Amino acid sequence: MNYKMVIHTIAQVVLVGAGLLALPLLVSIYYHEPATTFAYLCAIATALLLGGSMVILSRPQNRVIFAREGFCIVSVSWIMLSAIGALPFTISGDIPSYVDAFFETVSGFTTTGASILTNVEAMSRGNLFWRSFTHWVGGMGVLVLVTIIASKLPDRSMNILRAEMPGPIVGKLVPRAKDTSRILYMIYLGITVLVTVLLALGGMPLYDSVVHAFGTAGTGGFGIKADSLASYSPYLQWVITFGMLAFGVNFNIYFLIILRRFGQALKSTELWTYLGIVAASIAVITWNISSMYSSLGESLRHAAFQVSSIVTTTGYATTDFNLWPGLSKAILLLLMFMGACAGSTGGGLKVSRVVILAQMLRQEVRRMIHPRSVSVVRYEGKIVDEGTQHGTTAYFALYFFCIIAAFLLISFEPFSFETNFSAAVACFNNIGPGFDMVGAAGSYAAYSDFSKIVLAFTMLMGRLEIFPLLLTFIPSAWHRR
Amino acid sequence: MNYKMVIHTIAQVVLVGAGLLALPLLVSIYYHEPATTFAYLCAIATALLLGGSMVILSRPQNRVIFAREGFCIVSVSWIMLSAIGALPFTISGDIPSYVDAFFETVSGFTTTGASILTNVEAMSRGNLFWRSFTHWVGGMGVLVLVTIIASKLPDRSMNILRAEMPGPIVGKLVPRAKDTSRILYMIYLGITVLVTVLLALGGMPLYDSVVHAFGTAGTGGFGIKADSLASYSPYLQWVITFGMLAFGVNFNIYFLIILRRFGQALKSTELWTYLGIVAASIAVITWNISSMYSSLGESLRHAAFQVSSIVTTTGYATTDFNLWPGLSKAILLLLMFMGACAGSTGGGLKVSRVVILAQMLRQEVRRMIHPRSVSVVRYEGKIVDEGTQHGTTAYFALYFFCIIAAFLLISFEPFSFETNFSAAVACFNNIGPGFDMVGAAGSYAAYSDFSKIVLAFTMLMGRLEIFPLLLTFIPSAWHRR
Repeated sequence: MNYKMVIHTIAQVVLVGAGLLALPLLVSIYYHEPATTFAYLCAIATALLLGGSMVILSRPQNRVIFAREGFCIVSVSWIMLSAIGALPFTISGDIPSYVDAFFETVSGFTTTGASILTNVEAMSRGNLFWRSFTHWVGGMGVLVLVTIIASKLPDRSMNILRAEMPGPIVGKLVPRAKDTSRILYMIYLGITVLVTVLLALGGMPLYDSVVHAFGTAGTGGFGIKADSLASYSPYLQWVITFGMLAFGVNFNIYFLIILRRFGQALKSTELWTYLGIVAASIAVITWNISSMYSSLGESLRHAAFQVSSIVTTTGYATTDFNLWPGLSKAILLLLMFMGACAGSTGGGLKVSRVVILAQMLRQEVRRMIHPRSVSVVRYEGKIVDEGTQHGTTAYFALYFFCIIAAFLLISFEPFSFETNFSAAVACFNNIGPGFDMVGAAGSYAAYSDFSKIVLAFTMLMGRLEIFPLLLTFIPSAWHRR
Repeated sequence: MNYKMVIHTIAQVVLVGAGLLALPLLVSIYYHEPATTFAYLCAIATALLLGGSMVILSRPQNRVIFAREGFCIVSVSWIMLSAIGALPFTISGDIPSYVDAFFETVSGFTTTGASILTNVEAMSRGNLFWRSFTHWVGGMGVLVLVTIIASKLPDRSMNILRAEMPGPIVGKLVPRAKDTSRILYMIYLGITVLVTVLLALGGMPLYDSVVHAFGTAGTGGFGIKADSLASYSPYLQWVITFGMLAFGVNFNIYFLIILRRFGQALKSTELWTYLGIVAASIAVITWNISSMYSSLGESLRHAAFQVSSIVTTTGYATTDFNLWPGLSKAILLLLMFMGACAGSTGGGLKVSRVVILAQMLRQEVRRMIHPRSVSVVRYEGKIVDEGTQHGTTAYFALYFFCIIAAFLLISFEPFSFETNFSAAVACFNNIGPGFDMVGAAGSYAAYSDFSKIVLAFTMLMGRLEIFPLLLTFIPSAWHRR
């Protein structure tokens, strides 16, 4: 393990973190919030001091790093950014308990959106901005880290990219990772601005528009009102619906569109599977909840919003879906497990993995009937090699083990089975709200500090797709070879 | 597909079914129950008529069958046996609805133990005997079918054995499948008699002893009292505890003991994993529930009984574990998923698969750290080949898809999430009672006919380890090649 290089890179991430904190600082100055302003100044000072001393203390001669260094950098960076990002909440007094603030910040950076707040509207404007901004940073955090590492390490950067990028497949569309990152940044920024403008045009105040665009882009889900998006107009809800769906699409599709390879973009199995599942879920839920709302249009709006919110693992709500009938809740639970497309900001198992798993199962069944038949698994028109198949099923098994472990660790809490189980699922898949007590109208406030820390690590596990975090905490990975 | 041979073999199973129905007939004559006696006479007549005409109509020239014929025979046999076995319940008037009776009989033959009865003590003695006897037959049903097929097909019988035998690995300990079956019969019968004697010695009436020994042997769980085993003495509860654990052990272990290969028997990874998990679960639950009972001994007894009942997928109860704290319930839920050892009468994922999956995950993590290292997965001291690894993970994925599908299909019912989810898990893993409404003190009576049929097929899916039933209902398997 090249410790010096690891510390050196993390130090740079911490310094970038100090830069990120400048934005909420400006917001709190603009809104004349002295306590919040002071809190951000303290946090920035801490980050600069910590990052600076780490840079000075670690002077790496050998700048070569491998996959395990990459995993370690990624895991520790997320944890440190969250630890520093939690400071302003506690210093300003908005979230007195530091464990709560840490939970909230991890939830932000992992784009989960699970909250311990019981009265979100009492928060200062600066803090609410920072809370949503962590979603935006987290959603693209992947590439922030990648560019820092890629600038040092042009050849091996795809390794890190693979570890960070959600989902098993990232197409190598342009030769250099750095160019890839820059194009992805532009797309990400572009759609965020588009959503902000569309919201502002619909009459949403600019502050609200920016904050909600952040939450939508990162597929996070932190809002600024107690009822999430219920009090906004149907037009604004539809904008958010399409915004969430757009950020749940594999960014390679946008990439292809920019490169004018429209045919290739439209042939994507993942895209059509994703849109097909979304459309089918909306149709069934609209029918299932039609008696609860005054018109079919209203049912459709709520169904479309909730399906998009859950499948992209955002977590915004326009209505308390906890009160919906069992079938609708079961469909939402399934969508929670699946999640969005690979290469998007969404979490979950990912559509691509579900497609590959489904194909593998079909082949397995075929092999049982005709044992000597030669069968191959195809995805996006290409043959999926044994290694990827192996990795996909191993990930699937590990995925369930993690959710079960998290559920077991929090199960001593005196809440209902539905609460604890959906909390584990919603945190691991980076959705945010679950059902019952942690439903859209509830919060995670009642959990003990121990459970909050468990759930924070559950979110990180899910966001980093298990392996980086797991490997960071396995001692044998740290030995030199 | 060799249809004639398939029908011919199923006909013989139906005729065997007629023979099995003679036992409850004798019991109901002994206890002077005219309505029940008449019902069994009708059912036997139906079975003889149906089986006889099938034998006469199908005269196979070509007696060769392959795996897909085997799967089909197995699936259709279980369904037909259940359809015929349900007749006496409805004819005698004890279960007026035929769908309910079918659910109860499938639950019996699959050794699930899920019941739609709300007042089990109102049933006639003949019917209660038959209900428990289906567990005993189901638990060994595997080998009943195997011997019928094996007598026609000495070379290929291992195929069928593989399809029917729970779990991925069945050691070929004796050269001929027929001898294997005979030895397994003897072991099964032997332990059943032992449990009966131990129960009778503890003062349990002979009828009760036999019936409970059936339920224990098949790891089924149908009792004859409303409170399951709560009203029996601690000694009797301990006998059942050890009986259940004994039937959850891989029968190959007993096989090896009979062959005096003690060293090999004691080296079994699966056995020690099974016992270790059981011991650890009992310890944690005893501590967790200690405040609910008057003494540590009582807590230990309930914990040991419930853990054994759930891990072996039996489903007997000495107390309403639905009222236990969350941690204990979560552990029980996990044990529900795991199930007993491969090659036992228990259901679930099986300890062997869990061990192989855990080993595979460890190797996968190791490969992530040291990409060039050569890693092998070992189980019971032997290297697990790629095909078995592939099959294990595919089964694992399919296993979850089935449970989720069942849950989705019954989720329109107006019951709690906990009820519907645990019903799907408890039926697929052949446990019987779940939590909340379908808990140990509840029943499946409130479900609609549609859900009862879905759950009945869920039990069959779980019992036959998915593939046989799946292939029987996939049209392409039926075509000649």
